[in-house]
Amino acid sequence: MTTSTRTTVHRIATDSPADTRGLVQLIESNALDPATVVAVFGKTEGNGCVNDFTRGYATERLQNLFASHIGSDAARRIAMVMSGGTEGVISPHLTVICRERSAQPSAVDTQALAVGVARTPELAAHDIGRRAQIQAVATATAQALQQAGIDDPDDVHYVQVKCPLLTSQKIREAQTTGHAVATTDTYKSMGYSRGASALGVAVALGEIEAERAQDETVLEDMNCFSAVASASAGSELDYCEVIVIGNTLSASGDLYARHAVMQDAIDAEAVRQALAADAPGDRVVQLFAKAEADPSGEIRGRRHTMINDSDINHTRHARAVVGGVIAALAGDPTVYVSGGAEHQGPSGGGVIAAILSRG
Amino acid sequence: MTTSTRTTVHRIATDSPADTRGLVQLIESNALDPATVVAVFGKTEGNGCVNDFTRGYATERLQNLFASHIGSDAARRIAMVMSGGTEGVISPHLTVICRERSAQPSAVDTQALAVGVARTPELAAHDIGRRAQIQAVATATAQALQQAGIDDPDDVHYVQVKCPLLTSQKIREAQTTGHAVATTDTYKSMGYSRGASALGVAVALGEIEAERAQDETVLEDMNCFSAVASASAGSELDYCEVIVIGNTLSASGDLYARHAVMQDAIDAEAVRQALAADAPGDRVVQLFAKAEADPSGEIRGRRHTMINDSDINHTRHARAVVGGVIAALAGDPTVYVSGGAEHQGPSGGGVIAAILSRG
Amino acid sequence: MTTSTRTTVHRIATDSPADTRGLVQLIESNALDPATVVAVFGKTEGNGCVNDFTRGYATERLQNLFASHIGSDAARRIAMVMSGGTEGVISPHLTVICRERSAQPSAVDTQALAVGVARTPELAAHDIGRRAQIQAVATATAQALQQAGIDDPDDVHYVQVKCPLLTSQKIREAQTTGHAVATTDTYKSMGYSRGASALGVAVALGEIEAERAQDETVLEDMNCFSAVASASAGSELDYCEVIVIGNTLSASGDLYARHAVMQDAIDAEAVRQALAADAPGDRVVQLFAKAEADPSGEIRGRRHTMINDSDINHTRHARAVVGGVIAALAGDPTVYVSGGAEHQGPSGGGVIAAILSRG
Amino acid sequence: MTTSTRTTVHRIATDSPADTRGLVQLIESNALDPATVVAVFGKTEGNGCVNDFTRGYATERLQNLFASHIGSDAARRIAMVMSGGTEGVISPHLTVICRERSAQPSAVDTQALAVGVARTPELAAHDIGRRAQIQAVATATAQALQQAGIDDPDDVHYVQVKCPLLTSQKIREAQTTGHAVATTDTYKSMGYSRGASALGVAVALGEIEAERAQDETVLEDMNCFSAVASASAGSELDYCEVIVIGNTLSASGDLYARHAVMQDAIDAEAVRQALAADAPGDRVVQLFAKAEADPSGEIRGRRHTMINDSDINHTRHARAVVGGVIAALAGDPTVYVSGGAEHQGPSGGGVIAAILSRG
Repeated sequence: MTTSTRTTVHRIATDSPADTRGLVQLIESNALDPATVVAVFGKTEGNGCVNDFTRGYATERLQNLFASHIGSDAARRIAMVMSGGTEGVISPHLTVICRERSAQPSAVDTQALAVGVARTPELAAHDIGRRAQIQAVATATAQALQQAGIDDPDDVHYVQVKCPLLTSQKIREAQTTGHAVATTDTYKSMGYSRGASALGVAVALGEIEAERAQDETVLEDMNCFSAVASASAGSELDYCEVIVIGNTLSASGDLYARHAVMQDAIDAEAVRQALAADAPGDRVVQLFAKAEADPSGEIRGRRHTMINDSDINHTRHARAVVGGVIAALAGDPTVYVSGGAEHQGPSGGGVIAAILSRG
Repeated sequence: MTTSTRTTVHRIATDSPADTRGLVQLIESNALDPATVVAVFGKTEGNGCVNDFTRGYATERLQNLFASHIGSDAARRIAMVMSGGTEGVISPHLTVICRERSAQPSAVDTQALAVGVARTPELAAHDIGRRAQIQAVATATAQALQQAGIDDPDDVHYVQVKCPLLTSQKIREAQTTGHAVATTDTYKSMGYSRGASALGVAVALGEIEAERAQDETVLEDMNCFSAVASASAGSELDYCEVIVIGNTLSASGDLYARHAVMQDAIDAEAVRQALAADAPGDRVVQLFAKAEADPSGEIRGRRHTMINDSDINHTRHARAVVGGVIAALAGDPTVYVSGGAEHQGPSGGGVIAAILSRG
Repeated sequence: MTTSTRTTVHRIATDSPADTRGLVQLIESNALDPATVVAVFGKTEGNGCVNDFTRGYATERLQNLFASHIGSDAARRIAMVMSGGTEGVISPHLTVICRERSAQPSAVDTQALAVGVARTPELAAHDIGRRAQIQAVATATAQALQQAGIDDPDDVHYVQVKCPLLTSQKIREAQTTGHAVATTDTYKSMGYSRGASALGVAVALGEIEAERAQDETVLEDMNCFSAVASASAGSELDYCEVIVIGNTLSASGDLYARHAVMQDAIDAEAVRQALAADAPGDRVVQLFAKAEADPSGEIRGRRHTMINDSDINHTRHARAVVGGVIAALAGDPTVYVSGGAEHQGPSGGGVIAAILSRG
Repeated sequence: MTTSTRTTVHRIATDSPADTRGLVQLIESNALDPATVVAVFGKTEGNGCVNDFTRGYATERLQNLFASHIGSDAARRIAMVMSGGTEGVISPHLTVICRERSAQPSAVDTQALAVGVARTPELAAHDIGRRAQIQAVATATAQALQQAGIDDPDDVHYVQVKCPLLTSQKIREAQTTGHAVATTDTYKSMGYSRGASALGVAVALGEIEAERAQDETVLEDMNCFSAVASASAGSELDYCEVIVIGNTLSASGDLYARHAVMQDAIDAEAVRQALAADAPGDRVVQLFAKAEADPSGEIRGRRHTMINDSDINHTRHARAVVGGVIAALAGDPTVYVSGGAEHQGPSGGGVIAAILSRG
């Protein structure tokens, strides 16, 4: 191939959900071309639950910034995944992913990082957490894989889905029009939406058979899961956005992805595997992980108190733990850890993905 | 020496702050003689802050249990250190420390675990967080060292202090009698009390010079600290209780202590040092650590949000992180991690102590 | 009638969940005979949700105190209703209700306060929030009415039920033995248990027909409710306890009960009705009320944010509001307000009952 | 006088901190001229404490909206007072205050509503909560009075100050440049800033003598206070903004202001006074009040638990109570209640102001 796609990744610290100064600097110094941005991941310092407006605030600031550079239509095509909750040591930041055509041909035998993005249609409130959402996400995942130029599901190391939740207003509206929603508990709706999203990824990657992904599977059959999916729910969107990260021979550049599956929130061995580089001089550019309080109420056979805690939601506990464990082993607290890992990895665990740069 | 002291350590999972069943079983099966108990450490599942009644509830249950076996006077002499807050994966449990005279002589050249306990007089509300508390704790620490048979401060690996806090009632009473208290903020008083306690330990162990420990030192000069102190504040006592843990040649038994100093909440290297055994077959019996949100607002040069969080107190965030990091490296979430490390180790860090058993 | 029953009510401030000093003083000064106590209501300062151990702590202290006076069998027969959550101005306190035979005959034409207490058998985890619980509470309510000497349901002004909840341990045990529970969300199980309890009261008082009280009614058909029921869930018991408060001609004494139904959390008119005395000199001895965040997400046609708040549970918000409204109108913050009013009064509202003393 | 100023007030419900649709509708239907807007008060649904970004988010949305209509310079001159915290029944909303010259002469003997706005210079971090802030606010208050055309301090019914707080970044920067800040506790800095602001108002209105307003007065001498001041602290500004609301003969229109002083959080009588209209047909347009947990730890001689609560900040408890009490007596939960009443009214109490419309 005489040309290739090249994916670059910028990690930028933020001072608040409204802080875009670091990104502005990169753009103004020509280190980052806004026209090449395909996705932005952010950790914002809200509670990461229902009434977290830091996600929407950050998204709006970023969209306004990009719109001023590339126009609002192009800005809206950028996938924005703001994940609330920087419990413990997790440091608020943005990860900006850029993709461009490169004159440089791709290496014959070395894969490089590739990214693909797609979006589902708008979901009705009564479809959230149900089969309709699973199918919509599966379709979008397949589209994103194709865009990334990844043929083999084994080359996929991380699939992020940003998905909607049910607010009490949405629930009321659905009920008024005679539709039953998956749950009337707004906090719990986040879990339904994340779970259905992950099942959609699992279907698309062949991790589970399509017919296993039914309404009743969601939050019930926890043996159905995707080992690479990570879903975040937020009130600022009504559709699902899918971002596939993996490696492909058709890409060029120094970056590549890896992943491992944490079996529980303190699985140091999986973190070490994800951090393990292809070669000694390689360095970690960014880490992405899921966190969840083991729904069994136990971890390593010991009781934990996260689920029975009515003062702090268990997703907040779990992010603090997983963020701390990864930061300790990576030596860096600027990590993307998002909460609620329903059908995302084994129960109580979840994916940990790394993007590394060849020395 | 023809006889020796021998210290044993029992770690017992609990189902609630009121659960003493595991301890009862050990007593009834003669695995633990209540007459030999010198100290009980507990992690209870309250918020670990001002209005945490799980500490008092657990203490009362334990005292009633011991009183039924050894009488209430003897029960009252047992040092009870209930630390609230089992954020993240920390599993609620008790650590019971027993000491007895052993017919077995101590080894000539191998130190073994030793423990000593002492108590200050009752502290007035206006003495909390002040020089008077520092001096009282220094005196009690010296007494506990002597009781443990430890001469060299280098053989001390952990000094626990349980200390009082200021409630709004105590503050009102002090003000009525014309005494100024160190702070009128009940939550902040926990930090003052822990800080003064740690400075008392530092004075006793020669870590700082006695004249440096003044009213103004507390919560101000953070370069003054003890590398082995760990203090917990609670509303259930009006004095300070000091428990010294270390090694001495005059003790026998399989157990021994180690410690390292975590420079920050994600200091994996220090955790590894504390876990490192004298010999390959040795196993970890229990771990004790301090947790604190770095007061600088940064960790490894990155901003953290723990101190500005008005929903979750920063001590809770910090325990979740340190508990998670230690659990991940030790492979066990039943660890004793207590919050608020003022003058207990370097700013943002704290002691991590291990009790190990020779294979 | 030549003799009668006489019911007396003592309201006692507490300094902590463990504080029984006020009660001890009343007993030691012979102002209160422990042998006559039939029920104790308490407001304790925990979160009133799943991990609130202040209820259990207070209950244990009270039972130990009563056992030391009247023996542990008699102490266990006293109904203990500890309700957690003193949000806002609600002042922690105990309300002790005593009943004795009086040589004084009852008045021919004036009703006086009467109380009756009964208990259901232990409930299996899978019966909580289901028809089995409704029926068990209906039976116990009928027994309590008979004990109180109240024939006419219109003379009932308040029925308190204390009921169990599902912890993650109980859920696991039920699932292990092949039983489905009403919900696997521990916090939500409190609502199921309170709702089924209230429906049991409604059946017993003829407020709804027995056949309407099915599994599917609970938390679904909110038009089924009891106007006088108040239920509190706690982890410290496995059965339901029912306390009926009303007026009867067969009772003597100065006290009598009234009630009104708050249509929402700010129904000042209902509070005024409950406070309205039979005669000018009468004074309020104690108030009991239910609080709930309107599940519609609106109050008086305006949006409220209680249900979408992931930092503070909506029951806590609701208690703060209702406690404040009643305290403002009664001029006294020592009120018993408990949260979660499912099937207890109209949706968003609940009973407010008063015990008054004739001038 | 042949012309007059006329002040109008629009109260607009919001669906989220980002919701400006109601305001847009009023502008587009010509019911509200954006060029006449002098101030916007908002209740937004954050925690109202340090890490509340809903205030900044709402402010930004409003400024963008106004800028699109009247240009960004004019938009920046509008006083924006976003107060976080809609605990309990408080319904999120905006209150937009407009002022225009009217051809209609003012009535000879009837006062009408008037408003004046002024702003202090930017405050250094070390001036927050100190005498420099008091003096700056006093100067701005005098300017706002003059702008409103109010000569007699007795005609002032409400003075809102929006003031900055200390974040950990600001504290670090101050310390780096050798300046001591009033407190290093970010949450507590909100109280210092509110207190100094209120003392500034008190000085300007002659409620206290200028020389009493020293550094040491702030949060210490609680007998120094303004009966009409209400201050809110936020991280989204570095100066103080002052809005004076009162009555004057030089204004025309149907609106007028009243106020009363709540002696504590449940002072129903003061609420009734504020609601009392000049004439039977008058109706309440909006209410403004301060809320505070009585720092004595008691209310009406009874203990409250708000200050010792480490799970929920006491300002949140207090807003829930005062919001509930006012909503119950006014029959409307769309009220502006802001927390933290240091030097704003008597200790534990605060101003309640009403704007009414003549029938």
